[in-house]
Amino acid sequence: MIKQYYIILKNYKRGYHLVTSEILSQIDELPNEGLMNLFLKHTSAGLSINENADYSVRVDFETTMNKIVPEGLPSYSHVFEGDDDMPAHLKSSLIGVSLTIPISNGKLNLGTWQGIYLCEFRNHGGNRKIVVTIFS
Amino acid sequence: MIKQYYIILKNYKRGYHLVTSEILSQIDELPNEGLMNLFLKHTSAGLSINENADYSVRVDFETTMNKIVPEGLPSYSHVFEGDDDMPAHLKSSLIGVSLTIPISNGKLNLGTWQGIYLCEFRNHGGNRKIVVTIFS
Amino acid sequence: MIKQYYIILKNYKRGYHLVTSEILSQIDELPNEGLMNLFLKHTSAGLSINENADYSVRVDFETTMNKIVPEGLPSYSHVFEGDDDMPAHLKSSLIGVSLTIPISNGKLNLGTWQGIYLCEFRNHGGNRKIVVTIFS
Repeated sequence: MIKQYYIILKNYKRGYHLVTSEILSQIDELPNEGLMNLFLKHTSAGLSINENADYSVRVDFETTMNKIVPEGLPSYSHVFEGDDDMPAHLKSSLIGVSLTIPISNGKLNLGTWQGIYLCEFRNHGGNRKIVVTIFS
Repeated sequence: MIKQYYIILKNYKRGYHLVTSEILSQIDELPNEGLMNLFLKHTSAGLSINENADYSVRVDFETTMNKIVPEGLPSYSHVFEGDDDMPAHLKSSLIGVSLTIPISNGKLNLGTWQGIYLCEFRNHGGNRKIVVTIFS
Repeated sequence: MIKQYYIILKNYKRGYHLVTSEILSQIDELPNEGLMNLFLKHTSAGLSINENADYSVRVDFETTMNKIVPEGLPSYSHVFEGDDDMPAHLKSSLIGVSLTIPISNGKLNLGTWQGIYLCEFRNHGGNRKIVVTIFS
């Protein structure tokens, strides 16, 4: 059994955002057992799993990823869309755009502290689109 | 056909550890052809595929990932669980917690030099839990 | 329904290369709906999704990933295959070797600007092998 959905997230500002509920609210009831794949159709944002409780984690993600992949390096050649452009592409490949999560007992089988992050790397990324594919 | 398993790894110290055999020893015989998804239910450890032979690779992973994501940055705000806390969250999203591996001829279809790494980013991470989902 | 293919890519030089068409040309027509998993059987290269249009993105990937994971760090112990060896292993785990992409309406459901990158981290990596698994 396959089910596929095309969903559009709210417009998020640059940073790391918990979107588990927003995604689940846009799809039907989950099957009892299976896998859910989330695929983000963009090259300057990412999807990740991380801490769902303390907001400070998401703040430190923004600050620290900007240190790991700095803006304004003189070596950048892909600069015509602004200083946030090329670092966003790099972060997208480091974090990834495709997430596969197990479904057990009709729920996403996430750990207690895990939530799904939309990682918005652009200053003005707009509405991000996700293809959800569920196998059961 | 779906099969799902919930497995608990041994307690590993901080660092990078080959866990291919430990995982396979806790599940039934693999189907002839399919996919195996491994999902780690934690936000401060990761799963990866890398070199299964030379131990020095795993040593250099620990040393170098600590340079890429340093401890003790003055900018960290999420610090109440110690210096290894926030870097562990960041490494977890950089390395990832969900791995999908093909199964062919009743075996994981890994390359000659590939093994599954548990990447333990905490000083005292405890026993890590994995959901194994096999589609065939 | 599962279909599995074993494909061998052309020999690429170090850098980031668009391989979407090369992969699709080596497999049968896609099913109407499903998932495609690509698994690279190597520990010193990676697979990623990123910008399919402007070549400068791929140039900046090479330059910037070399800054994030430098060659010649005095701390490296795994050095017997040359300066590009250990950084290649690290980049492989940061970028990943397993990609899962949705199939919709008989096509890969990629975003407008998304393509599949082979990320070749070695100076002389040779022909890279991929297992393609399609579920429908």
